[in-house]
Amino acid sequence: MSDIYLFEAIHSARSIRKLSPDQVPDELITRVLEAATQAPSGGNAQNWFFVVVRDPEQKAKVAAVYRKGSEIARQVYAARGRPKHMSEAQYRRFNQGGGWLWDHIAEAPVILAVCLKRRAMPARDKLPPEIDYDVECGYLDRIQGASIYPAVQNILLACRALGLGTVLTTNHLRCEGDLKEALGIPDDVTTYALMPIGWPLQNFGPLTRKPVREVAFADRWGEAWQD
Amino acid sequence: MSDIYLFEAIHSARSIRKLSPDQVPDELITRVLEAATQAPSGGNAQNWFFVVVRDPEQKAKVAAVYRKGSEIARQVYAARGRPKHMSEAQYRRFNQGGGWLWDHIAEAPVILAVCLKRRAMPARDKLPPEIDYDVECGYLDRIQGASIYPAVQNILLACRALGLGTVLTTNHLRCEGDLKEALGIPDDVTTYALMPIGWPLQNFGPLTRKPVREVAFADRWGEAWQD
Repeated sequence: MSDIYLFEAIHSARSIRKLSPDQVPDELITRVLEAATQAPSGGNAQNWFFVVVRDPEQKAKVAAVYRKGSEIARQVYAARGRPKHMSEAQYRRFNQGGGWLWDHIAEAPVILAVCLKRRAMPARDKLPPEIDYDVECGYLDRIQGASIYPAVQNILLACRALGLGTVLTTNHLRCEGDLKEALGIPDDVTTYALMPIGWPLQNFGPLTRKPVREVAFADRWGEAWQD
Repeated sequence: MSDIYLFEAIHSARSIRKLSPDQVPDELITRVLEAATQAPSGGNAQNWFFVVVRDPEQKAKVAAVYRKGSEIARQVYAARGRPKHMSEAQYRRFNQGGGWLWDHIAEAPVILAVCLKRRAMPARDKLPPEIDYDVECGYLDRIQGASIYPAVQNILLACRALGLGTVLTTNHLRCEGDLKEALGIPDDVTTYALMPIGWPLQNFGPLTRKPVREVAFADRWGEAWQD
């Protein structure tokens, strides 16, 4: 059974955008999805769904949606410019890597659509009057990501452990209706990520990240965490 | 160096709510935060911040906010009732475990507040006119969770590997302003999770989850994934 140590996986699970078109055995995808379903979710509701797209016609439809959303992303990135913490070389690689995927996602043997069914609110008259129903609905909206992106991170790490490449993408959300139509996703289900999965044509980690001392505080904002 | 295999970590990283008050060495918290910062984030922006609350007075303030948000949660859960996929016994344990933490979070040696600085939009006049600025702002709102909850999952798994217990909580978001005031968090930074961390007084995994065949589809919604 293929496996690696946790910290090795976490520290080398680079976003992999260049993938071989070679097939990935179904049982590996199942292991990745098992890992996804071990994640926590609000109220342990486990409202996640995963559409494993391998059929070439379906992949082409998904790729067209991703391309459309990515074209908008390209223009926003260009207007935003290079983030301060990235070097010119890092930023160039970042743009080239992302841009490459925009045109080639259909070449991945698998594109995984990660979905979450909206958690139901109790009926308004079932809640005590001192609870603001609309505030509570807003809270429910805000915490949806907490019930699906932990599963997405498990997918990224499980792929890494199995030697598979993948990357978390969200550009399709700019035209999500098109994706839901292509995949037949019901109205009360929302998509959260498109993840191409396949054998990597790039190397895994290590990763370059901001050091902990720049992002951690002790007891209150602004008080240095001594690492 | 303490470490376990990835799939073992993923399959046993149970939510741990009962924690010993014994101190956790700073270097373990730093390792956990290093793991968090390896996660992906939109545009690799790494806008995460972590406030490590250990001071008893600060913890008491955080605990009061969590208690206040949890009291609302309690009433919503009661109105919603038992989810279909949980047995009566599981649901009772779920309520008892959650409820216990509502009153005892301050006993954890560490409460970690996980934050994300809102990513800046380019100025409206920098974007081409064919891009709908408000739609793009909405997209940015929707994808914030994709830039912080993967880091949260790395925290959950790193704690598991180091033998530390923790749990992802969000109840405080119902009264987030109180938390931001207590911790001095700036206006343009949002909190996403409160995570008590300490040595567990409960056992790790295995976890009970819906089987993959109930949540995975092949190529389109409704078409069974054969696992």
